[in-house]
Amino acid sequence: MSAFPPLRHLLLRPRLPLSLQPFAPLLRPSTAVPIRRRRLRLLSSSSSSTATQDSADEVAEPPPLATGKETSVVDVNPPRGTRDFPPEDMRLRNWLFQNFREVSRLLSFEEVDFPVLESEALFIRKAGEEITQQCWRYERMTRGRRREHYQWNMDIIGVSKVRAEAELIHAIVLLFERLGVTSLDVGIRVSSRKVLQAVLQMYSIPEHLFMEVCVIVDKLGKLSREEVEKELMQAGVLLEAVKGIVEVLSLKSLSKLEEVLGSDSEAVADLKRLFSLAEHYGYSEWITFDASVVRGLAYYTGIVFEAFDRAGKLRAICGGGRYDRLLSTFGSDDIPACGFGFGDAVIVEFLKEKGLVPDIARQVEDIVFPLDVELEGPASKVVSSLRRKGRSVDLIEDKRLKWVFKHAERINASRLVLVGNSEWQRGMVRVKNLSTREEYEIKIDELC
Amino acid sequence: MSAFPPLRHLLLRPRLPLSLQPFAPLLRPSTAVPIRRRRLRLLSSSSSSTATQDSADEVAEPPPLATGKETSVVDVNPPRGTRDFPPEDMRLRNWLFQNFREVSRLLSFEEVDFPVLESEALFIRKAGEEITQQCWRYERMTRGRRREHYQWNMDIIGVSKVRAEAELIHAIVLLFERLGVTSLDVGIRVSSRKVLQAVLQMYSIPEHLFMEVCVIVDKLGKLSREEVEKELMQAGVLLEAVKGIVEVLSLKSLSKLEEVLGSDSEAVADLKRLFSLAEHYGYSEWITFDASVVRGLAYYTGIVFEAFDRAGKLRAICGGGRYDRLLSTFGSDDIPACGFGFGDAVIVEFLKEKGLVPDIARQVEDIVFPLDVELEGPASKVVSSLRRKGRSVDLIEDKRLKWVFKHAERINASRLVLVGNSEWQRGMVRVKNLSTREEYEIKIDELC
Repeated sequence: MSAFPPLRHLLLRPRLPLSLQPFAPLLRPSTAVPIRRRRLRLLSSSSSSTATQDSADEVAEPPPLATGKETSVVDVNPPRGTRDFPPEDMRLRNWLFQNFREVSRLLSFEEVDFPVLESEALFIRKAGEEITQQCWRYERMTRGRRREHYQWNMDIIGVSKVRAEAELIHAIVLLFERLGVTSLDVGIRVSSRKVLQAVLQMYSIPEHLFMEVCVIVDKLGKLSREEVEKELMQAGVLLEAVKGIVEVLSLKSLSKLEEVLGSDSEAVADLKRLFSLAEHYGYSEWITFDASVVRGLAYYTGIVFEAFDRAGKLRAICGGGRYDRLLSTFGSDDIPACGFGFGDAVIVEFLKEKGLVPDIARQVEDIVFPLDVELEGPASKVVSSLRRKGRSVDLIEDKRLKWVFKHAERINASRLVLVGNSEWQRGMVRVKNLSTREEYEIKIDELC
Repeated sequence: MSAFPPLRHLLLRPRLPLSLQPFAPLLRPSTAVPIRRRRLRLLSSSSSSTATQDSADEVAEPPPLATGKETSVVDVNPPRGTRDFPPEDMRLRNWLFQNFREVSRLLSFEEVDFPVLESEALFIRKAGEEITQQCWRYERMTRGRRREHYQWNMDIIGVSKVRAEAELIHAIVLLFERLGVTSLDVGIRVSSRKVLQAVLQMYSIPEHLFMEVCVIVDKLGKLSREEVEKELMQAGVLLEAVKGIVEVLSLKSLSKLEEVLGSDSEAVADLKRLFSLAEHYGYSEWITFDASVVRGLAYYTGIVFEAFDRAGKLRAICGGGRYDRLLSTFGSDDIPACGFGFGDAVIVEFLKEKGLVPDIARQVEDIVFPLDVELEGPASKVVSSLRRKGRSVDLIEDKRLKWVFKHAERINASRLVLVGNSEWQRGMVRVKNLSTREEYEIKIDELC
């Protein structure tokens, strides 16, 4: 017998080619398979023998399947920037996703899914040629920023009014509330791309510079003010305009913004409407106007927003905005749209910081244990009957009773069902209730 | 206003680089955005103007973001072999996955997940060099066989006894039963790699040919018997042995197998135990011995099995087996293991064939509709209050009441909540119960 309890793993994923299910993750310690890992030194294979299953002695020296490699070192860690989800992390992820789904249900959203991969041409169309040089987000990994991550996206398509943004922010607030996060922990900064657009018009900056300017000023906070100003000038914005842009972006009050842009400003009207709606929804305390919010993506056209950690420890928790022109970029008609992306990595970091990660235990209800190897048939019957009644049942064999008791307690099982010879002959099994410590015999048919 | 009801989409996926969320799927008809699609001819861009949000007249001629392309044609269909999941398909997928998860729970499995990508070195180690020439399953697509698919995997690690296989097959049977599939529709063919191994020993065929022979004989049924025999001979198996192999593989009875392999055969002992356990579990009618089952993957070492459509219309629904040597291939100790993969594509095809796909309706409970544009604030209050009470609520604005009624019926909503001026002044809203046709006024606080 192996030294660890048998593992039972379930996996639901988009799969690579059928013959390529990587078992490498099983070599990682996260799966609790206690074997050596990291950079495994595999043996040189000068002989041409391949693996067969009968030579138990050869086990310690695994015959490599690949040929032509003299000595090879295989790194079994997940590729940089990606993650394994061992059971305890997976439980947390499923809990988080259930919350994403539940909030989406409250807002009557319908779930959709698309391929992991898309044609390169579409990426180029959306983001420009340079994107093809990237692969699966090849950039510096930081806390909560990974090469592969999950994202909760909500998009409303076909609504041009600020109502859509108000709905999306409502969803975000409802999620935070469900997770136990308050508006003292998190805020949502809101602005509009129209602010910057108005400033560009004030300084007669050509329209074609708009997107570039957006991308540059989004770097405020990451780069110094001086560096951002320098980039703006390199893009062809004159010094006076640069100063004007940076000044407006530092505004934190809507009335000040109205002073600068005038009372007929679309940006101001949109933002005022959003703040008014927020009051009616009841989430005013979550949102603040902050002209410095621009978001890094070129395609936003109106209101933009991002949720941030008020303690300032983490990067944006989520972000989104209106993108009324993106679909037409692909040759369709113009369709008003807005949406947000909410990654799974930063929020988990955040919840850990705040001690808000729930303790989600494994849920095994019954452990069935035949006291004798001859009773594997009866044990099968018991297991099958309990499962048909909806119970979550594990079957343990070839262990000592003491080990089974300890294991049952460790995984928080509620009952131990012992299948013994003398009881079985009377059509009975012995049950131990692990919370009440009660022990009793029961007829198999009555066990449920 | 657009011609279609506003769409609300939710997406939960591993994401490509943050800036690369492909919106291309929104251009596909599956998402119900009524725009032209397929090979969209995008406009030539000799000018350097880029998109801004103020020029509503330009909408019909979308300014491309990419530069340097004179005229480009972008195919917005999903990459070949991949799928979009519009809401109705996604509901079906979620239903299927819930069943996968529920059965896994009954068997006390724990869910895990791993990156979509793994290091190339691991693939080579597992499947040989030629695998690196493939990309995201580049092979011929057939019905239910796609380049990207989801798969339900269950693996038991650390159990060397046939019990593990019996448990896995129990899971498969429980799933079929939940889906309404009977043993008249589906069977599970079972054999063991040890059968073939014993035959090879009978003919003194060198062990290093074992895996190759397995992969070749798995082609029986796809290739003709003559072609398979030819491939075996090309691999170095003598004619007499080839005839012997093919003969044994045609066996459909365990007693005949015992006659050929002898009573001390490990293969026969394993299979007998499995069939005995199956009887105790109560799923004997689902499984049959069939020596021709070999499975195409090189790494199986013991019992192998696959579920098949008894009507013979579809390829294997799922398959698996024991792979006690795979982990040691990577340099770890030998660890007994077995598992199966159950794709989401073939089973859905199968359920459609049998009329077993459930009709899963969208679940919107309330539609809130302000009768006057001035009432957008009060409508927000109502929406917010209902959602906090756990109701699934959509908010419709800027439509005619008649349209809203029809829409509510079409999506099967249970109530329509009308926010009107005179009622609101009395702190009331008007509710129409869409199933009973009952209509009444109610205080906002009492609405739940």
